[in-house]
Amino acid sequence: MRDLLALTERPEVISFAGGLPAPELFDVDGIRAAFDAVLASPGVLQYSTSEGDPRLREEVARRYSIDGLPTAASDLIITTGSQQGLGLLATTLLDPGDTILVEEPCYLAALQTFALAGAHVVGVPANGDDLDLEALDRLASTHGPKFFYTVPTFQNPTGRTHGLEARRRIAEIARSRGFRIIEDEPYRQLRYSGDPLPSLAELAPEHVVSLGSFSKVIAPGLRIGWIRTTADIRSTVTIAKQAADLHTSTIDQAAAAHYLVSGRSEPALDRIRDAYAARRDAMLEALPTVLPEGSTWTRPDGGMFVWVRLPEGSDATTALRRALSRDVAFVPGTSFSSGTPDPRTLRLSFTTYSPARIREGLSRLGATWGADG
Amino acid sequence: MRDLLALTERPEVISFAGGLPAPELFDVDGIRAAFDAVLASPGVLQYSTSEGDPRLREEVARRYSIDGLPTAASDLIITTGSQQGLGLLATTLLDPGDTILVEEPCYLAALQTFALAGAHVVGVPANGDDLDLEALDRLASTHGPKFFYTVPTFQNPTGRTHGLEARRRIAEIARSRGFRIIEDEPYRQLRYSGDPLPSLAELAPEHVVSLGSFSKVIAPGLRIGWIRTTADIRSTVTIAKQAADLHTSTIDQAAAAHYLVSGRSEPALDRIRDAYAARRDAMLEALPTVLPEGSTWTRPDGGMFVWVRLPEGSDATTALRRALSRDVAFVPGTSFSSGTPDPRTLRLSFTTYSPARIREGLSRLGATWGADG
Repeated sequence: MRDLLALTERPEVISFAGGLPAPELFDVDGIRAAFDAVLASPGVLQYSTSEGDPRLREEVARRYSIDGLPTAASDLIITTGSQQGLGLLATTLLDPGDTILVEEPCYLAALQTFALAGAHVVGVPANGDDLDLEALDRLASTHGPKFFYTVPTFQNPTGRTHGLEARRRIAEIARSRGFRIIEDEPYRQLRYSGDPLPSLAELAPEHVVSLGSFSKVIAPGLRIGWIRTTADIRSTVTIAKQAADLHTSTIDQAAAAHYLVSGRSEPALDRIRDAYAARRDAMLEALPTVLPEGSTWTRPDGGMFVWVRLPEGSDATTALRRALSRDVAFVPGTSFSSGTPDPRTLRLSFTTYSPARIREGLSRLGATWGADG
Repeated sequence: MRDLLALTERPEVISFAGGLPAPELFDVDGIRAAFDAVLASPGVLQYSTSEGDPRLREEVARRYSIDGLPTAASDLIITTGSQQGLGLLATTLLDPGDTILVEEPCYLAALQTFALAGAHVVGVPANGDDLDLEALDRLASTHGPKFFYTVPTFQNPTGRTHGLEARRRIAEIARSRGFRIIEDEPYRQLRYSGDPLPSLAELAPEHVVSLGSFSKVIAPGLRIGWIRTTADIRSTVTIAKQAADLHTSTIDQAAAAHYLVSGRSEPALDRIRDAYAARRDAMLEALPTVLPEGSTWTRPDGGMFVWVRLPEGSDATTALRRALSRDVAFVPGTSFSSGTPDPRTLRLSFTTYSPARIREGLSRLGATWGADG
């Protein structure tokens, strides 16, 4: 599989396999101006506190509060990307052998982080296109998990979003079964259609620790994420952060805070949303004509990914080999599984190409089904 | 002790307790220009590789090689400060219950990192002002340690440097007893007098993993360090780095590489060395007149710290209380101990004040001894 994925990086390949944001949409000028402004004083070159830049925490807290989730700066710990947030929570919450629940399929790097911490990872299956809530309740009752890890909005890899009723039920199950939820929200602000939904933290404040990140909404090179923690683990998480790297880059944090305050981040994010929406639409419009009869797929209201299930008897890994021979690529769904993978599934990313290039890539993909039919 | 140290931060206090570099010596203009140059292209805002920026690794490798230690870029893994390097090595090399050896006294954050990893930490005592090499050999034979952690040059907290003969003997003991050495070198380039010494990695290449950092020679706010690893653990360390935070800030790494290539880092480091040398000299000149009869202290050729041992019967924590009442501060040596602390010891940092202010602070300190005599 690793070898196959290496082939997706040949320049002639139109690759829907990636998970990167589109670099031409980064607000280079705005970010450059922010760095230039904060580097006028030597303070940004000094050591700083493990919790993070106070001004940055204020700005992030303010945005949460506007978004309906009352948040104080002191609830936030800035991390070196949300990958570090995952690691700090694993360190803080898990002992080897502890059971946790994840969505099946699940964000790959989270699976790896939890496995590295020695966790016993149990996948909660889907019921059709949605999370199987009865299975969540049953597995929580059976296993007494330390936490349930979820990407509730525009999930990687499926693009799936838990609806309002599902969110309420997840919060209720967490309360009744007494487990925490880690709510990972890198894509929440990448919404192109539909109405915003309350976060799980709003619905079960004492049970939910949230992860956020600027990687998909400003730029990943900054390596800035955060944990919105509950009071009971705040000091433990802060100690783990201090041990991990003392603190996140003082310069990058100050520049991010300056950039948010500058007012340039919102129009830049609007440009990203507009471009991604057009790319998603191009993909969703083309899919019916290029996928084999009997395929199903998600129609996400945001994020970066569409999840496809090929017809009965198909195998996405075999399909990838054929696709690569026509210079188009995707990731088979088996890569994202905590348990029994569904070999018919695959992930398509729509963020990095123009609509025209997406149509060209999908047309190449469409030609591959005929190749063996 | 935490409460006492909080008192050292009152603005009227001349504090020799800190461990920060002097911010007025940061090359703000040079660093700002480097950020501005690299932020001309969007590539520095994208995700990058876990091993680190290839150009930065080339530059660091080139400096090692010029310094007498042949190093390839591929030997280096960029870390988010050398604190992360310590953590990654603890993750890679230690299982709970493993014994490691440290210098007594030892850099505090390293002690905390190894304790957090569940290590059994054994201190190697001093013999007068030097490391007790026979004790190192004996403790290595008794405990079969996973590694010996050392800051061989201008150590924190003692300012002590292992001489050439000691280095050769440490390398020999590591070879004969079959343990690794973690050589932590944040201060190596801060030399104000005396001749450079070979690194331990030069003397026992297969046994030594080295840690480096820009925190003391460029600026800590960058949060850039590195591990110069041996081939046998390179891939394991890289996987641990990926799990920790995917990679260090793409922007900060690119700016650091640009800054090194720009030729501005060497004159800036010369200015730091000149200023710190004058501050060290001011401290060493004043100490004989301000410390009580019978005190001894180190005379470091570089770094940031002087280590004082008060006369028989003294207690540095009691002395700190008296010192604070006269608005001067230091850190009692008990803070840096892995085993039985010596209550007569204390650490003085000479980096953050002008020579005149250092003389004023030490004069205040001198007045405190009379206070109980």
